[in-house]
Amino acid sequence: MRKIHVIGIGAGDPDQLTLQAVKAMRGTDVFFLLDKGEVKNDLTQLRRDMLDAHLPAGSYRTVEARDPERDRKAGGAAYSPAVGDWRSARAGIYARLIAEELDEDGTGAFLVWGDPALYDSTLAILQEVLEQGAVEFTYDVVPGVSSVSALVARHRTGLNRVARPVQITTGRRLAEGFPEGVDDVVVMLDAHQAFRGYAEEDMDIYWGAYIGTPDEILVSGPIAEAGPRIERLRAEARERKGWIMDTYLLRRNPGDA
Amino acid sequence: MRKIHVIGIGAGDPDQLTLQAVKAMRGTDVFFLLDKGEVKNDLTQLRRDMLDAHLPAGSYRTVEARDPERDRKAGGAAYSPAVGDWRSARAGIYARLIAEELDEDGTGAFLVWGDPALYDSTLAILQEVLEQGAVEFTYDVVPGVSSVSALVARHRTGLNRVARPVQITTGRRLAEGFPEGVDDVVVMLDAHQAFRGYAEEDMDIYWGAYIGTPDEILVSGPIAEAGPRIERLRAEARERKGWIMDTYLLRRNPGDA
Ligand SMILES: C[S@@+](CC[C@H](N)C(=O)[O-])C[C@H]1O[C@@H](n2cnc3c(N)ncnc32)[C@H](O)[C@@H]1O
Ligand SMILES: C[S@@+](CC[C@H](N)C(=O)[O-])C[C@H]1O[C@@H](n2cnc3c(N)ncnc32)[C@H](O)[C@@H]1O
Repeated sequence: MRKIHVIGIGAGDPDQLTLQAVKAMRGTDVFFLLDKGEVKNDLTQLRRDMLDAHLPAGSYRTVEARDPERDRKAGGAAYSPAVGDWRSARAGIYARLIAEELDEDGTGAFLVWGDPALYDSTLAILQEVLEQGAVEFTYDVVPGVSSVSALVARHRTGLNRVARPVQITTGRRLAEGFPEGVDDVVVMLDAHQAFRGYAEEDMDIYWGAYIGTPDEILVSGPIAEAGPRIERLRAEARERKGWIMDTYLLRRNPGDA
Repeated sequence: MRKIHVIGIGAGDPDQLTLQAVKAMRGTDVFFLLDKGEVKNDLTQLRRDMLDAHLPAGSYRTVEARDPERDRKAGGAAYSPAVGDWRSARAGIYARLIAEELDEDGTGAFLVWGDPALYDSTLAILQEVLEQGAVEFTYDVVPGVSSVSALVARHRTGLNRVARPVQITTGRRLAEGFPEGVDDVVVMLDAHQAFRGYAEEDMDIYWGAYIGTPDEILVSGPIAEAGPRIERLRAEARERKGWIMDTYLLRRNPGDA
């Protein structure tokens, strides 16, 4: 039976790999590296560097494939269906990779950014491949340090305040309103700096871009002051590198509900 | 200047240590092991085993201290103040440990369960020690794999569904009502199985106890069926070991808002 490891590799710092991830990598014959287009080439390179650093040369094989582009222009309600189409296109690619590149008793792996549990479609796609029934395999998941954990570690703060909840959401959702019932909100996948809608509120922001990499930028402070600085640094960095990955925690001060 | 590492060590599986955590441990002179009473002795032992496994004998020192008990009987609104008193009692202990056990240019470390960012008071206490001003030091944080990431990895599911938010909260909060605006909720620190209040709802539960350890128990399924099984297994395990650590994800099916 074919076996697949879905391995969380941390969110940028190669030392965020766990010992469990390194062991799973050492037990892997074929690594599937999915390339999401030129802007993310740096991230494929980081995966290759991790393999070089921890595995004996010649002990494994890599297979690169091009990930189909998601229709990013679809707005609002269209978001989920577009993701759905993209996911089944990907399922076809994954099925072929597994069937054609892996021996019947071989072990393959996907190296997933951060923690495979957060805003990543690999697990859903593998589930879909199994449901399609064209290829059989077993799989397991190696958890990783998410960009959320990396963000707050660098800011030396917690995610939640004592006995209180924290919500993790997307920029798109935050643009629709501040989540109900929580004062601590982590925002991912925000292409439009939705925090700008909260500049007047009594909130602190803890922001980070390219966290854990040599390009890391961190800014924190009251949103009214830190917000404009973040906008400027973000625009400059994006211009310079051609792409950006950023995440932030919004912490509303109690009493401002 | 004294230096402190706050190191996330993962939530039970010793292989969940990151390479960064191992490096920080290797650069540490003194480890502060805080004992939270007899039921948690196993957890102190796990930390000792990690040190044995990764550091040359004789290269470090450990100092054990007894953590003052928190007033667990305080209910509802009294929760935060009780935590506050406990935190300042702990700040006094931490200040003495750092001042008395660490040379002026020494490096100390606290080995924090899971990820230091989730429902852990170490960072707040160190901040309080610095504010009290009796001892000076710098500190950094090494993020870890949280029990939340470990839970969903073992269940091979994601935390969030596509483009949707997830909330992390406590059993106490869940007992007050299902959080607003989210259908995916992770519950920690639940001594009273608050999920029982949702047995009639169209929800799935993904539950785990002692995740990552040889005692690990996992149960998932529709809450109406899985709930009673979890109650039974939880009571048996707690009886057998004398203590329990469990966490779960509640996933409400769309349309049941
Ligand atoms: C598709 S999600 C994947 C998240 C990943 N599974 C994790 O656990 O971090 C991509 C988003 O994660 C965040 N992100 C990932 N890596 C990051 C980094 N190194 N610095 C800042 N944000 C990051 C950004 O919000 C980005 O839009
Ligand atoms: C004080 S909090 C600390 C959480 C920790 N910082 C983390 O990141 O997992 C303790 C709670 O974490 C959860 N927990 C920690 N380790 C666990 C494990 N191995 N299995 C199940 N739940 C765990 C339980 O909900 C427990 O009540």
